[in-house]
Amino acid sequence: MIEVIGLDADDTLWHNEVLYKETKTKFVKLLSRYRSVMDIEDQLDRIEIDNLQYYGYGIKSFALSMVETAVRITDGNLDSSDILRVIDFTKEMLAAEVGLIKHVQETLNRLSQKYNLMLITKGDTFEQERKVNRSGLEAHFAYIEVVSVKTQQTYLKLLDKYNIHPTNFLMVGNSLRSDILPVLAIGGQAVYIPYQDTWEHENDIEESINKEAYFEIPDIDHLPELLSRIDKDIDFG
Amino acid sequence: MIEVIGLDADDTLWHNEVLYKETKTKFVKLLSRYRSVMDIEDQLDRIEIDNLQYYGYGIKSFALSMVETAVRITDGNLDSSDILRVIDFTKEMLAAEVGLIKHVQETLNRLSQKYNLMLITKGDTFEQERKVNRSGLEAHFAYIEVVSVKTQQTYLKLLDKYNIHPTNFLMVGNSLRSDILPVLAIGGQAVYIPYQDTWEHENDIEESINKEAYFEIPDIDHLPELLSRIDKDIDFG
Repeated sequence: MIEVIGLDADDTLWHNEVLYKETKTKFVKLLSRYRSVMDIEDQLDRIEIDNLQYYGYGIKSFALSMVETAVRITDGNLDSSDILRVIDFTKEMLAAEVGLIKHVQETLNRLSQKYNLMLITKGDTFEQERKVNRSGLEAHFAYIEVVSVKTQQTYLKLLDKYNIHPTNFLMVGNSLRSDILPVLAIGGQAVYIPYQDTWEHENDIEESINKEAYFEIPDIDHLPELLSRIDKDIDFG
Repeated sequence: MIEVIGLDADDTLWHNEVLYKETKTKFVKLLSRYRSVMDIEDQLDRIEIDNLQYYGYGIKSFALSMVETAVRITDGNLDSSDILRVIDFTKEMLAAEVGLIKHVQETLNRLSQKYNLMLITKGDTFEQERKVNRSGLEAHFAYIEVVSVKTQQTYLKLLDKYNIHPTNFLMVGNSLRSDILPVLAIGGQAVYIPYQDTWEHENDIEESINKEAYFEIPDIDHLPELLSRIDKDIDFG
């Protein structure tokens, strides 16, 4: 029996990675007079992943990695006004509208009538709270949690905090690494909804995955029907 | 009767502002060949406060403001290797040891035997969780909450989440703006422990303050005695 449904936010409820992709495109264009597109992209990816250990996730972390990349690839020849452009890109990202993924609104409407919903999102509190507020979805959630990483430990702590047994918990998200595997490992259930633009890092998993162990649906609006099927106490009609 | 004691973390449990001050000193020294100390400090302060609306609090926000300041005050003449030094300062801040304020360890030991303690800290989840982990204080807390701002609304939401009535809540911290005034306004109690290096922004309050409305102690080790006095059910012996 499922009591609580956890939902990832970025690229599960609203579009997020597309904002990073658009900004990367602007960044590459800005620096294209110094270096090739491929060089810039490679360096940014490398520096971004190296810096996760210092900065964690989020737009400000990405911004600091863009700044570092810009300086490193230009070997001391960077025009400092280019740095101000990167700061502008960052502020634009932070102020961007929140674009809901289709069918999210009506699906949450239906789910929240039968379950307690918990939004579990990775990143910076300030940035994520702003998106929650702008999304208009806040009222659907019994719990909203911003975490720095999503490991088995993260989920165990959250479930313990609210006295939820893992077997009564189902997590929904677009990242095998963050939303699916750790939840399966602690004895919960998980629904994978692939998102075309998911950051490779999130699904670049070393361990082999048992695709039988979790559910996969192409769109969030399949969720009520899936729940009717796996949770005998529930009928979404 | 007090049930839950909320404790601020930065500059209440561990030293924090000193890290910003030390970094500001390094930053000013780095840029001193371009501009006067006073110009650099003034611009950084102004840009930092302007950027709170975009970035929120924390080291990464401060870092982006240092980068922006460096570029703006040098009118296009900034040596880009100086930007890498700022990135280095940032990573050093993020990796810094957590220095507990004196008497914190033994005071939390005593308090946690009689009360549920809630750590309520403002800033970036990733940065604050790291400090909590390094502090060794985690086990004393029933609840740990990282929030983006500390307004009346923030406290009301937290207390509601855990079913705590404001009259059963007492908050302890070094910021009148964030720890004391909003808690008094919602009907809770508050203990102010001044910290010599508190960022001016935190105590630069426009409203007049009724100093009778909250308690003030010079050191956290006065807290058990104060509680014995105001909470009749408690005796710390």
